[in-house]
Amino acid sequence: MEERKRRAEILTEALPYIQKYEGQTIVVKYGGAAMTDEQTSVMRDIVLLSLVGMRIVLVHGGGPEISRTLDRLGKETVFVDGLRYTDEETAEIVSMVLAGKVNKRLVSLIHKNKGRAIGLCGADGGMLQTKKLDSADLGYVGEIVAVDTSAIEIAIAEGFIPVIATVGVDDEGQLYNINADTAAAALAAALKAEKLISLTDVRGVLADKDEEDSLLTDLSIDDIPKLIDRGVISGGMIPKIESCAAAIEGGLREAVIIDGRIEHSILLELFSDTGIGTLFHR
Amino acid sequence: MEERKRRAEILTEALPYIQKYEGQTIVVKYGGAAMTDEQTSVMRDIVLLSLVGMRIVLVHGGGPEISRTLDRLGKETVFVDGLRYTDEETAEIVSMVLAGKVNKRLVSLIHKNKGRAIGLCGADGGMLQTKKLDSADLGYVGEIVAVDTSAIEIAIAEGFIPVIATVGVDDEGQLYNINADTAAAALAAALKAEKLISLTDVRGVLADKDEEDSLLTDLSIDDIPKLIDRGVISGGMIPKIESCAAAIEGGLREAVIIDGRIEHSILLELFSDTGIGTLFHR
Amino acid sequence: MEERKRRAEILTEALPYIQKYEGQTIVVKYGGAAMTDEQTSVMRDIVLLSLVGMRIVLVHGGGPEISRTLDRLGKETVFVDGLRYTDEETAEIVSMVLAGKVNKRLVSLIHKNKGRAIGLCGADGGMLQTKKLDSADLGYVGEIVAVDTSAIEIAIAEGFIPVIATVGVDDEGQLYNINADTAAAALAAALKAEKLISLTDVRGVLADKDEEDSLLTDLSIDDIPKLIDRGVISGGMIPKIESCAAAIEGGLREAVIIDGRIEHSILLELFSDTGIGTLFHR
Amino acid sequence: MEERKRRAEILTEALPYIQKYEGQTIVVKYGGAAMTDEQTSVMRDIVLLSLVGMRIVLVHGGGPEISRTLDRLGKETVFVDGLRYTDEETAEIVSMVLAGKVNKRLVSLIHKNKGRAIGLCGADGGMLQTKKLDSADLGYVGEIVAVDTSAIEIAIAEGFIPVIATVGVDDEGQLYNINADTAAAALAAALKAEKLISLTDVRGVLADKDEEDSLLTDLSIDDIPKLIDRGVISGGMIPKIESCAAAIEGGLREAVIIDGRIEHSILLELFSDTGIGTLFHR
Amino acid sequence: MEERKRRAEILTEALPYIQKYEGQTIVVKYGGAAMTDEQTSVMRDIVLLSLVGMRIVLVHGGGPEISRTLDRLGKETVFVDGLRYTDEETAEIVSMVLAGKVNKRLVSLIHKNKGRAIGLCGADGGMLQTKKLDSADLGYVGEIVAVDTSAIEIAIAEGFIPVIATVGVDDEGQLYNINADTAAAALAAALKAEKLISLTDVRGVLADKDEEDSLLTDLSIDDIPKLIDRGVISGGMIPKIESCAAAIEGGLREAVIIDGRIEHSILLELFSDTGIGTLFHR
Amino acid sequence: MEERKRRAEILTEALPYIQKYEGQTIVVKYGGAAMTDEQTSVMRDIVLLSLVGMRIVLVHGGGPEISRTLDRLGKETVFVDGLRYTDEETAEIVSMVLAGKVNKRLVSLIHKNKGRAIGLCGADGGMLQTKKLDSADLGYVGEIVAVDTSAIEIAIAEGFIPVIATVGVDDEGQLYNINADTAAAALAAALKAEKLISLTDVRGVLADKDEEDSLLTDLSIDDIPKLIDRGVISGGMIPKIESCAAAIEGGLREAVIIDGRIEHSILLELFSDTGIGTLFHR
Repeated sequence: MEERKRRAEILTEALPYIQKYEGQTIVVKYGGAAMTDEQTSVMRDIVLLSLVGMRIVLVHGGGPEISRTLDRLGKETVFVDGLRYTDEETAEIVSMVLAGKVNKRLVSLIHKNKGRAIGLCGADGGMLQTKKLDSADLGYVGEIVAVDTSAIEIAIAEGFIPVIATVGVDDEGQLYNINADTAAAALAAALKAEKLISLTDVRGVLADKDEEDSLLTDLSIDDIPKLIDRGVISGGMIPKIESCAAAIEGGLREAVIIDGRIEHSILLELFSDTGIGTLFHR
Repeated sequence: MEERKRRAEILTEALPYIQKYEGQTIVVKYGGAAMTDEQTSVMRDIVLLSLVGMRIVLVHGGGPEISRTLDRLGKETVFVDGLRYTDEETAEIVSMVLAGKVNKRLVSLIHKNKGRAIGLCGADGGMLQTKKLDSADLGYVGEIVAVDTSAIEIAIAEGFIPVIATVGVDDEGQLYNINADTAAAALAAALKAEKLISLTDVRGVLADKDEEDSLLTDLSIDDIPKLIDRGVISGGMIPKIESCAAAIEGGLREAVIIDGRIEHSILLELFSDTGIGTLFHR
Repeated sequence: MEERKRRAEILTEALPYIQKYEGQTIVVKYGGAAMTDEQTSVMRDIVLLSLVGMRIVLVHGGGPEISRTLDRLGKETVFVDGLRYTDEETAEIVSMVLAGKVNKRLVSLIHKNKGRAIGLCGADGGMLQTKKLDSADLGYVGEIVAVDTSAIEIAIAEGFIPVIATVGVDDEGQLYNINADTAAAALAAALKAEKLISLTDVRGVLADKDEEDSLLTDLSIDDIPKLIDRGVISGGMIPKIESCAAAIEGGLREAVIIDGRIEHSILLELFSDTGIGTLFHR
Repeated sequence: MEERKRRAEILTEALPYIQKYEGQTIVVKYGGAAMTDEQTSVMRDIVLLSLVGMRIVLVHGGGPEISRTLDRLGKETVFVDGLRYTDEETAEIVSMVLAGKVNKRLVSLIHKNKGRAIGLCGADGGMLQTKKLDSADLGYVGEIVAVDTSAIEIAIAEGFIPVIATVGVDDEGQLYNINADTAAAALAAALKAEKLISLTDVRGVLADKDEEDSLLTDLSIDDIPKLIDRGVISGGMIPKIESCAAAIEGGLREAVIIDGRIEHSILLELFSDTGIGTLFHR
Repeated sequence: MEERKRRAEILTEALPYIQKYEGQTIVVKYGGAAMTDEQTSVMRDIVLLSLVGMRIVLVHGGGPEISRTLDRLGKETVFVDGLRYTDEETAEIVSMVLAGKVNKRLVSLIHKNKGRAIGLCGADGGMLQTKKLDSADLGYVGEIVAVDTSAIEIAIAEGFIPVIATVGVDDEGQLYNINADTAAAALAAALKAEKLISLTDVRGVLADKDEEDSLLTDLSIDDIPKLIDRGVISGGMIPKIESCAAAIEGGLREAVIIDGRIEHSILLELFSDTGIGTLFHR
Repeated sequence: MEERKRRAEILTEALPYIQKYEGQTIVVKYGGAAMTDEQTSVMRDIVLLSLVGMRIVLVHGGGPEISRTLDRLGKETVFVDGLRYTDEETAEIVSMVLAGKVNKRLVSLIHKNKGRAIGLCGADGGMLQTKKLDSADLGYVGEIVAVDTSAIEIAIAEGFIPVIATVGVDDEGQLYNINADTAAAALAAALKAEKLISLTDVRGVLADKDEEDSLLTDLSIDDIPKLIDRGVISGGMIPKIESCAAAIEGGLREAVIIDGRIEHSILLELFSDTGIGTLFHR
């Protein structure tokens, strides 16, 4: 009985956090290296959050699985000026893996946990209207030109968790590969979300990258350029953090980068005063 | 961190129970001896259940406080044929204590826990239409003749927790004292509730009343007459259990009597497979 | 037949007034000395107004009944610097009398007249968020810091007449005694009401207080300070009229003080071109 | 003041009648000889009834005005086997007078009384689907084959008083002349109305037709054949009463024939216990 | 089969035009000389446009039929200062012909084509609130002072095609004759329509009035005064075009004058890139 | 101009067919050999039908593309007792190709034609709840146990065309390969569709399979067993037609098999009296 009382106690201690986020839109970006074996557990956390009243939108990529499928299909990567080029067939394979495999697996895992999900991609409802990059011709790598959230909104209104594969479309019906961090940030801004939670495979931004304990828990987006200059933010973290910053400038309240390798990392972030990663805000 | 992970774990373990009761109507009867010093804690549990998607209706009595106020007002109890008689002034004092004091205290405690409640009595919206008892003239002690749940339904639909004081009204506008167990059961039946949870000051029905471990966890309402004959159900438990049985016959799925003196007793009942009291079912 | 035709005639003569107020929110403040033996008749008038399409909100106090109950309970009034102090127990008794006795009596009288009412107090739905007075420590005498009209709005939308006891609540769940005139004016402003009708035990503002025929029928709120200076408005009328003026500044169209001792005074006010009391406007 | 109090008194005495009919559908049939100079007054009564919550549907004919217009246009009436024949041009003139003149005059009079009306005929929304009479070839005199009340329902739902000219239409778009009593009864049945009030130029059914005081106030439809046999119901009253009886058999609660020449006759009927004409019921 | 394939082809070629106007409000003005024998065909086109998603409002006059009826009734036209004067009886005859004959014929033809229409005039729902002309006393010839589109809006929302006879009404319930072009333009502006299509008996504005091929397909409203000066726009076209211009200044996107004598002229206008008449725009 | 008039004529001739199907649910099954190079044209027809008011649900398979992908991935087909076995990896590849490639291509083509589509599979919203076949262990080849159409219904209600990939899911979140004809028939029955149109690569059912002109245009489902016996229906047509028959028994009004190789075949079927394939009905 004491153990059961302790459990009840813990539930009631979650109350203020549930109340804090009730009815608010939370975009969770999940993908890449953070997509470990624990996908069932992550989806169970998502179902729980949805059930206690948050409007959860799950945005996912799936880079490693795309690479594996391209390999298996013997599709060689073309490079243009040293950059990876997405030809039409590759764009199609990206769509196939993201929207047909990863997306439906996540939807199925939510279903397994008795949650209700609808899996969509950026072509559905013209959600992510895309064009070729202005900066360089990398083929069907897309830049988002407009976001139409109506399909997401109706899914949420009817009690479904929208699960979004980051594939874009243009007016000619051509599919595009879109960076998942960029897409998640654009969707979060368009949805006027309260929070964007990005699951990665690092603790967050570390003041000293060799020292896990040097985690910066809280950063103003004004400080980002300085941290990039000083090399504290570097490599693949740069675009990820810049798109968070852009979304915050576009209306999102806050974005946080957390370590998706930790079990229940989303719950740990939302159901505590301190969070567990690096929080970006205005 | 390990402690925090353990807490997250416990939250996710509550998921199936939350899903089980999501969107269902649960009537909680609270009052009398079960109304201990822990009212704030009980109201916090109620707020939590409401937040995770249950349609909670709180029905309360308040006998001891009525007696205290009658005493302080120097109001003497009249007895007719040895039974307590409720004269007009007493009926007014009952309304005053239940609907003005206990009811508003519970509403305030829910407010303190950041929940949203609306306190009503059976006169509001003509909810509990009442007449004098047929069985004996005990003055303004009421028998329910009709239940109109519309005020409760709109409160729930708009996200409020309805808190109901068990005062009735007749066509002439006369207020009546109504037995809280009877009223809770009648409301549960009229609301087509999933479950009626009655907080009492006993463990439940005990096979051997001197042996707490002899708790009967599960009873068919068909077995009730037999248990009354054998004295297993006796005294004040008889009307309480008979009104549960009537509600189950009137459409309620199940009713349970739990020990309100145990902290978080409602959570312990709902968030486990076994429950903690005696469950009545068809 | 002639008598019946005359009655029909009178009904059709009411048409323009019914049309004038159809769909508009009218707050009626009822209480104190105006709460005479004719409460049934006043509630019948309220039911009629509601039925012909006005959105009536009834706000009541009940000072004399509070005093009587404090006396009977032998509760002695504490004075601080010569002012009446409301200790915790007194606040509880105020709630008990207003929300449990007066409020439910009015609801019952509406029910008796086949109207549909819901009785609430300022704690319900967090309607009247209150704090201690800034001006002096008079204990739990409240000053309104915020008004949440959602419980009132849903009651009206569903066809109920909201009946409001002027008890407030703070974030800690503490109940407060609030001046009924102030509360009615605050609610009228928050509801963007068309009109606040205050039932009192005087004819209105008299130019010469010993001369009933010297009634001022119409006053701009700009003239109030001057009339206070000249003593035309004095005593208990000052706070009452100042809260009307504040509400008019806060968005209310007009406020009127009428003599509640006259039978059907509300109908006489609304169903004529001239009204019967003193009308305040911008 | 006493006069004003008396008026207020009379208003409150109307309360039970207003409550009795609130939200109920009342079909008023107005036309023929009952359509006297007092049309403005009748429309004011209609506006009043609508405002106090009844769902009024006004159905009108206009025989005398049709005759006058036919005369002025020099249109000669054709007789077939001694019965008046409606040729295509006559049907068009009927539509013109009923839907374009009488209907719009009534709509305008409601507008003058600050009511909101929509004038329709049986062709609008395919309301009265009609075919030639089976019994005899009288040209475009119609028999109702189906009723579609959707245009009426939306008008009421949006707060308009529907005013219906009794012109029918067939699948080929041909307009028909329909008997107004029949049409009113058919509409009342299709709308599942509470009551059909038929304004005529007689007191009602008289036991002795030369004795106004011999009014039969209350008749079961089962007694109609017998009264026809005995000549108590005769002439133009027969079809009128038979269509009432048919409507009652089709679901209408009650139908009443009143003397439209009496001012405020509709109010006199509805706002009293006894009514003023002959009431037909099951 | 080839013929059937060709038909299917043509349907799909209409797709972009259907998409262009889907959900948009199109006011069609139909009347006078354009009201030829092909009314059934015009109504079929209207039903088609409504069915493919346009919000069609049909506004009609009926001058020639009014003249014929006045003649037949032997009603002599009165002239005041050389201008035709509308006395009370004439206003009534106008209402009768427009709202009772022409309007109901159009409604019936839509019904014949399995469309759903509701015929209204400017008195219904107080749609066209009117007063006497300021410029000259021509009796009951009206100038529109206010437009209330609520009756039209609910008709469209419920899937009906509103058919509007251009009769106005004032506060006293007096009916007025209104110029149909003016009324159509006022309604189009009040409805914030996308387009006003005016069916006339000319090709449009001709640069050389004797040369049908000199059609001006496109005109800015700024050029209208100049064209009037030069005599390109003259006679009855001046008021027609000036009311279009006023509506465009009042919010309407564009207005077009097309030749109603051409079969399917409305379809030809809407389902092509070039249109068939003269288009006015800002 | 003559050509343009002819086109307008053809549009109006489509009117009765548009009216016939307005607001009705039509399930189109598209896939396999019928999925030719003309997919853009088929999607344009779908957009047109949706725009003129039909509730179109597009259900697709994609067998040939699955085979090609399995080949390219070097995935060998396992046979059990001579039957093709779907192992877990194959089920995943099926989902990838159907839900990620074919589905998103069709959605994109609708988008290209300015239509609005949402692409879903049977896992989304738990739409196609599936289990292993009872008849034989063919791995993850599914048998539908329940259909939940809520995701489809909300998509249609919000103006989207639902495009459904026939992948199923079980309670454990396992994906299944489902026969597309079976799935389309099950969805049509669950949606209470008016019509199921199945695009195939044959003319329909031929009385003499070598004679295209021997097309049976109309068949009662009662005649199917007999035609199978006689070999008129044979091979791959048997399961296709049996699932149509089952759907008709389950509530679908009618099912038709048409030749998807003919351009605009769906329009030819719907916009003519005779249709172009074989129609099955009760």
